[in-house]
Amino acid sequence: MLEDKSPKYFIVKKAIVENIDNDLYHSNEAIPSEKKLMELYNVSRITIRKAIDELVTEGYLYKIQGKGTYVKADEGSNNLFSITSSTEDVQKMGMTPSKKTKISRIEFASPKRAKALEISTDDKVEVIGRISYANLEPLNYTIAFLPEKIFPGLIEYDLEHESLYKLINDRYSVRITKARRTIEAVLAKDEIAKYLELEEGMPVILFRCVTYGIVNGKEIPIEYFKCYYRTDKYKFYIDQIRQ
Amino acid sequence: MLEDKSPKYFIVKKAIVENIDNDLYHSNEAIPSEKKLMELYNVSRITIRKAIDELVTEGYLYKIQGKGTYVKADEGSNNLFSITSSTEDVQKMGMTPSKKTKISRIEFASPKRAKALEISTDDKVEVIGRISYANLEPLNYTIAFLPEKIFPGLIEYDLEHESLYKLINDRYSVRITKARRTIEAVLAKDEIAKYLELEEGMPVILFRCVTYGIVNGKEIPIEYFKCYYRTDKYKFYIDQIRQ
Repeated sequence: MLEDKSPKYFIVKKAIVENIDNDLYHSNEAIPSEKKLMELYNVSRITIRKAIDELVTEGYLYKIQGKGTYVKADEGSNNLFSITSSTEDVQKMGMTPSKKTKISRIEFASPKRAKALEISTDDKVEVIGRISYANLEPLNYTIAFLPEKIFPGLIEYDLEHESLYKLINDRYSVRITKARRTIEAVLAKDEIAKYLELEEGMPVILFRCVTYGIVNGKEIPIEYFKCYYRTDKYKFYIDQIRQ
Repeated sequence: MLEDKSPKYFIVKKAIVENIDNDLYHSNEAIPSEKKLMELYNVSRITIRKAIDELVTEGYLYKIQGKGTYVKADEGSNNLFSITSSTEDVQKMGMTPSKKTKISRIEFASPKRAKALEISTDDKVEVIGRISYANLEPLNYTIAFLPEKIFPGLIEYDLEHESLYKLINDRYSVRITKARRTIEAVLAKDEIAKYLELEEGMPVILFRCVTYGIVNGKEIPIEYFKCYYRTDKYKFYIDQIRQ
């Protein structure tokens, strides 16, 4: 398939992918250093870097700052999170979960948020922006909008240490019933790149979600959120059961 | 929040996002032309293009070739597909589904595929690469690997017009039981960009999936696939029910 006229970095890329497919480079283990790869393929450092950078953005490899470049696991990975994973899931995997609050404020609902939450633009929303970490590595950044009239005083709680959904259930007696998430791939830019500790332009997953709950006996939207996931190091899964 | 020292394209970006949030620019409607935006913000075409290009890759806008730039719908969209959607789902939405076969061959299982499928590298797999379309627009590209010993003759069928899962069930009497998908954001390159009719470097979603089924009374892996989804125009959702 490879023709001699392919660019050099492309030949290197294909060779590395073949080594991954043939299990010569193992999942979650480092590939050879840039220097070794330069010797092996008799190409420049620039060529090796271009090949590696593309394989990182295409989901074959991931980098650990100051350590090296690793093979991303296909399946049976140890770094596999449920897409709906919680603080408890992070703990179950033997990792330490933590959160950092970047936004905590009350504002009038924008027309778009008002529509999603079925409230008016005269209503206020509590806005909570938090980064979730596993062992101090960012997993995702979530910005949530909740109607203040349903959850008065919500942002007064210590949202770095308390679970939002536990508060909603325990303190506000709202039972969450369902959620519809849309899912997209987008590029990390500006504060999203900063919060997720990614280079600008790295692909991330964006969920937009409306969560429903029972308030005064009626099922209504109780939260709108956007959530950006890093998927370069950790992987996320969805299980499906067919009947 | 905006300081005068922000780059011009950044100020334009933020202004467009604000107009989307405030529903001045409506979902699935075109934003003003480049020329109008140039006049409105008193900036160059290059600045407008940079702002728009970033908003496309960040999931706010999408482009239709030769027509213009549109606002991506947040929720309640008409272009919303289930992440597990089938040919029938595309039809239900009043669109015409079709498939194009790009790969159809038999090869020895690579060590990685053999491991995923719990077979040996002496076993052969049938490899099927297909693009799925809705109204002739590409939705996803899937490359599937199935053990030949379970599905002899599978690639002989007309896979552009027959459903793979229907064949598996009807012709091979294998009942599919479950699937685990991992989900990542990656950049479209090479044949993936070409098949999905995207510019190189656009973010796409990559699923890697092992499907299980009952063969001779035992639940075993029957398929491994990688699937690349365009999410710039169509959106995909996942529903969750909490108990």
